[in-house]
Amino acid sequence: MKFGGTSVGSVDRIRNVARRALEAQKAGNDVVLIVSAMSGETNRLLSLANQVTPVPGAREMDVIAATGEQVSAALTALAVHHEGGKARSLLGHQVRILTDAAFSKARIRSIDATAIREALSRGEIAVVAGFQGVDDGGNITTLGRGGSDTSAVAVAAALGASACEIYTDVDGVYTTDPNVCPTARKIDRISFEEMLELASLGAKVLQIRSVEIAMKYNVPIHVRSSFSDAPGTWVVGEDQGLESVTVAGVAYDKAEARVHLVGLEDKPGVSAYLFEKISEENISVDMIIQNVSKADGNRTDVTFTLSKSDLQRSRSIIEEIARSAGAQDVRYDEDVSKVSIVGLGMRTHAGVASKMFRLLANEGINIQAISTSEIKISCLVAAKYTELAVRTLHEGFGLSKAPPSKP
Amino acid sequence: MKFGGTSVGSVDRIRNVARRALEAQKAGNDVVLIVSAMSGETNRLLSLANQVTPVPGAREMDVIAATGEQVSAALTALAVHHEGGKARSLLGHQVRILTDAAFSKARIRSIDATAIREALSRGEIAVVAGFQGVDDGGNITTLGRGGSDTSAVAVAAALGASACEIYTDVDGVYTTDPNVCPTARKIDRISFEEMLELASLGAKVLQIRSVEIAMKYNVPIHVRSSFSDAPGTWVVGEDQGLESVTVAGVAYDKAEARVHLVGLEDKPGVSAYLFEKISEENISVDMIIQNVSKADGNRTDVTFTLSKSDLQRSRSIIEEIARSAGAQDVRYDEDVSKVSIVGLGMRTHAGVASKMFRLLANEGINIQAISTSEIKISCLVAAKYTELAVRTLHEGFGLSKAPPSKP
Repeated sequence: MKFGGTSVGSVDRIRNVARRALEAQKAGNDVVLIVSAMSGETNRLLSLANQVTPVPGAREMDVIAATGEQVSAALTALAVHHEGGKARSLLGHQVRILTDAAFSKARIRSIDATAIREALSRGEIAVVAGFQGVDDGGNITTLGRGGSDTSAVAVAAALGASACEIYTDVDGVYTTDPNVCPTARKIDRISFEEMLELASLGAKVLQIRSVEIAMKYNVPIHVRSSFSDAPGTWVVGEDQGLESVTVAGVAYDKAEARVHLVGLEDKPGVSAYLFEKISEENISVDMIIQNVSKADGNRTDVTFTLSKSDLQRSRSIIEEIARSAGAQDVRYDEDVSKVSIVGLGMRTHAGVASKMFRLLANEGINIQAISTSEIKISCLVAAKYTELAVRTLHEGFGLSKAPPSKP
Repeated sequence: MKFGGTSVGSVDRIRNVARRALEAQKAGNDVVLIVSAMSGETNRLLSLANQVTPVPGAREMDVIAATGEQVSAALTALAVHHEGGKARSLLGHQVRILTDAAFSKARIRSIDATAIREALSRGEIAVVAGFQGVDDGGNITTLGRGGSDTSAVAVAAALGASACEIYTDVDGVYTTDPNVCPTARKIDRISFEEMLELASLGAKVLQIRSVEIAMKYNVPIHVRSSFSDAPGTWVVGEDQGLESVTVAGVAYDKAEARVHLVGLEDKPGVSAYLFEKISEENISVDMIIQNVSKADGNRTDVTFTLSKSDLQRSRSIIEEIARSAGAQDVRYDEDVSKVSIVGLGMRTHAGVASKMFRLLANEGINIQAISTSEIKISCLVAAKYTELAVRTLHEGFGLSKAPPSKP
């Protein structure tokens, strides 16, 4: 059971966490809690460090940031005691959660679940500090913002837990953003793969890296509300009774910008050169679209998208790279939006793409670029059409209606 | 170099600590910093725990409290970076400072100085979190309030450091309380033994347990101000050039109460029975005075002192014990004060006690009880005479004048 920052944001909420854990234990479960820092605490600690030095070193930043989860783990254990239960806090170096040495964005290498198992065998609720680990040299590391989800799934995997419950302030994953589309519907069950592709929907409730781990170790995740007992959204393997739908959800991303390189030489290796250079500059590219050569010569156009914030800092670099790759012109468009449909059903249902294009065309929405994966189709459209496109696709693929469960 | 809570109480002060450490390093020293939590932080954390449960378990309390030093150690390391130096924070479990499992009042068993030595060999300033350690089972422990002094001396001993500098907000140890006696003088050098007996003077600047460790391992302590470069007070072994004085300081304690047991049976084992029982109740007794039997029978009186706060909670227990030991009456006096003179010179100078009694008598101060050790004489007097007695003894033993140094 993982509780995020707002779920442990006050003494009352910490007590609520303790009660929920004890209920789960009374129902016959061994219970491991994973807790984040109390909301606001990580920012307070960061700002303290920034007052000391504008660019604090990552090793010491992790030592400071890890105290947020250390305090909430111990407070939660105390709250369990207060409710008459048994509990024990366990920190990253006590569990131990071994990571690489990439401070502030460490990745978990292994988890030794012995200390947790010992606590469970004594009838205790193990309260594990999320977000933190320890490297080979005993240095404290953190997993990056939202890393507590990753801690939770990794601990669940190490224990072979029957489920990893992620408690949050929303009641599950929706077919699309309810703020954009009022008929958005809570999804009961969704596959790991779909969840990964719906990153932009899911990121608000679930750290995407944790879904990768859950998929790798086949740990069912239950995303649900800390404030209600209602079931939320199960994120599970494909074989675990998924809804029988073609499209599971509609996502959008307004944070991307489009770069259009005009008239590149159309010879082998140009694209490779281009994106190698871009990658060397640590510019992270999302969609890449290259058309076949124009009829009028051996030149081609390449379009790609990247985050708007990356564009600001890397415009001159991109132009230099484009020039050296022989581009005749570089054009930018920041008023774009990526709208995507995601669903396992696409793999077996033909005509999903053409239906998507037709739905958008019917509304007069011009598609600037298309990119597809096995279970996702994304269209770049003018930013002003974002909401209209999302609602159109949501209705067009019948997502507001509850689907029949698979037999 | 150990800096307490007020010395790291703000970002500016933490920067000051970093600068002092770098100066010491530039002067050719290997430097280890030991830091406390920022002032107020420990209380903030305790109050958070108390909001969760009125009597928080000691194991979890230590997990919470230890974060105070964890944050200030990392902030101090960052401040050293900011000043252009190299530094690395080290926590109790990283050093590692092995303690027993007595949460909230653990005692250090051993220190593995490898991690500190490695940091020093890289030219780094090692910033060790004070107050904390780790037990055999990897649980976080704390050493009790003021425990950072103990951490500092223990680390200095483990490293064979040439000195342990304790930085504080006063500039040293004084011959008596300057608030009571304006002619009180800063002591340049004092022995470990005298410092231990002057606990009530020293406690404000130096944790007494740390002096015991310093004495055991012969680590010279330099108590000095964080806000000036002036030398403070050296606490050293007897052979290290001490001032040539009979009396080193005058201490007083207003926090004690007197208990007078009247008419106990005067037979072997009565005192033993009495104080065994009192000790079983965890009542801590200071002075114990038993007079020879009264001429009028085989009954004797016993007087002892204990802290006023202990008296409140243990009055009924004391009366029960007194009854079972055959006492005819139990009398209390809370308006008492203990005034003491301390000095190695007493061992060789006769007449120190009689001079003390005469000085007090000359001022009309009645002595209610006397207790002596090899280097300390304490008199119990009416509380209203405390300040007069302190000033009288301070002048009478010539403490306001700087003593000649031993050749």
